[in-house]
Amino acid sequence: MEKSTRIGWIGTGVMGRSMCGHVLAAGFPVSVFTRTRSKAKELLDGGAVWKKSPYEVAKGSDIVFSIVSLPSDVEDVYLSEHGVLAGLSEGGTVVDMTTSSPKLAVKIYDEAKKKSCFALDAPVSGGDVGAKNASLAIMTGGDRKVFDRVLPLFETMGKAITYMGKAGSGQHTKMVNQIHIATTMIGTIECLLYAYRSGLDPSEAIRAIGSGAAGSWSINNYGPRIVNGDFEPGFFIDHFIKDMGIALEEAKRMSLSLPGLSLAHEFYIAAKAQGLGKRGTQALYLVFERMNGIER
Amino acid sequence: MEKSTRIGWIGTGVMGRSMCGHVLAAGFPVSVFTRTRSKAKELLDGGAVWKKSPYEVAKGSDIVFSIVSLPSDVEDVYLSEHGVLAGLSEGGTVVDMTTSSPKLAVKIYDEAKKKSCFALDAPVSGGDVGAKNASLAIMTGGDRKVFDRVLPLFETMGKAITYMGKAGSGQHTKMVNQIHIATTMIGTIECLLYAYRSGLDPSEAIRAIGSGAAGSWSINNYGPRIVNGDFEPGFFIDHFIKDMGIALEEAKRMSLSLPGLSLAHEFYIAAKAQGLGKRGTQALYLVFERMNGIER
Repeated sequence: MEKSTRIGWIGTGVMGRSMCGHVLAAGFPVSVFTRTRSKAKELLDGGAVWKKSPYEVAKGSDIVFSIVSLPSDVEDVYLSEHGVLAGLSEGGTVVDMTTSSPKLAVKIYDEAKKKSCFALDAPVSGGDVGAKNASLAIMTGGDRKVFDRVLPLFETMGKAITYMGKAGSGQHTKMVNQIHIATTMIGTIECLLYAYRSGLDPSEAIRAIGSGAAGSWSINNYGPRIVNGDFEPGFFIDHFIKDMGIALEEAKRMSLSLPGLSLAHEFYIAAKAQGLGKRGTQALYLVFERMNGIER
Repeated sequence: MEKSTRIGWIGTGVMGRSMCGHVLAAGFPVSVFTRTRSKAKELLDGGAVWKKSPYEVAKGSDIVFSIVSLPSDVEDVYLSEHGVLAGLSEGGTVVDMTTSSPKLAVKIYDEAKKKSCFALDAPVSGGDVGAKNASLAIMTGGDRKVFDRVLPLFETMGKAITYMGKAGSGQHTKMVNQIHIATTMIGTIECLLYAYRSGLDPSEAIRAIGSGAAGSWSINNYGPRIVNGDFEPGFFIDHFIKDMGIALEEAKRMSLSLPGLSLAHEFYIAAKAQGLGKRGTQALYLVFERMNGIER
């Protein structure tokens, strides 16, 4: 890819800041917009150029990336009057890396096409650490040839980069990821509660079961944090509720009943109700503790 | 351990047959009882001696192992008139490797103690393949010094051999294992159904998510079998229902509410109702398919 390719970046939260930093470090000219300008300071100090709207970012870019918060933010960034698609020139490419609605990803793809532009949906997994270390998993939907073109930029940010199929497939894959995590977390929490209540040493129990058929990333990574009383994010419960909500909405749209996901979703809503929205997803353990009359 | 130590073995099903075979191959004198004599044929051909009851096995043994089916079978094998504890001499040791009730394990331990005998509960994980390859995980409860004494025999059968604490701790640890597997399997099934319904290639989806934070033994091992329509056991649904039943009963006894485990248990009962009791645990996928109106 030509090092003169002009990159636009929208959204410089914990994730976006690191990801955009990798693109900038790779030597591309980058223009930036984010809601709170101070969050882009480091990037601007590093040579990125400030723009005052998604529209302005798109005006001066060949490829525009975004990683924002909610699907409604994504819609606003791309499809509003001052949005990216209003500003992008023919032949331009947009890449939304927010975990967002597959349906919206298809809508953006269709709208881009009407303007002879290209769109990918490419949500990530791996959290702030993965963003910092450029070791994110990136799950991509859209046209294969567009994916191939953008790949060198993805490679500055991540490691397991997969092309999953037509528009929306990246978001669908991320939903597969979140659906699996949701119930696995319930398993992690319930088995630790059982270990605790039955008088086992929970750390020993994790060691005994974690490498066999009951093993999961969740029990081996969140398990020890739970045992140590570490409920810091990782990944916010608030964000996980958003993701599960998208998955449940899509599932409903496809007439798909997912009782395990629904159960997890309900308990995470309880976690939010108990003031745990800004704690890590493993803090669901506290809800199950309280439910079982266990005092901390 | 003296190679003259006389070993008794009760239960030569798929698991017990291989496990007892390893002890025999290590050069110990072994006497055997099992309900269906033909199932012990290979062991008898290999030099094991047939006994006509658990009592008779115990009479001529220093250490008696068992791996049978239900907790009621365990109770019968150890505590009945013709059972092991009636026949065992002072100083003898019993090791139940059935996945059974922690409460019953404590009862056997107490009864053994009254006779100046020793007892371990040592259920295993790793299935028929693990039993054959001597790579089982063995989770042990009882007295540490008894565990240390039996360890050389465990080492002929398994790899990850852990001492978990007082009597019943082995069974409790196995329950921790099963509780975690139960909900993780729901996650595996639901995320694959979502992948299928959303038009993704499920194999690609497994590859995309299996090595990250959503990874589990279940998605990486059962996932591909489900995608290939392979519902052979592995581990019987009937046996898993038994294990979850024990876990739920123990949890209730300890006043512990485990909604995820309960949900999994209910769906596995549905699987049994649909004639899937002798299929592998991954065949729960078929229940979720039918529930969602998907025809095979």
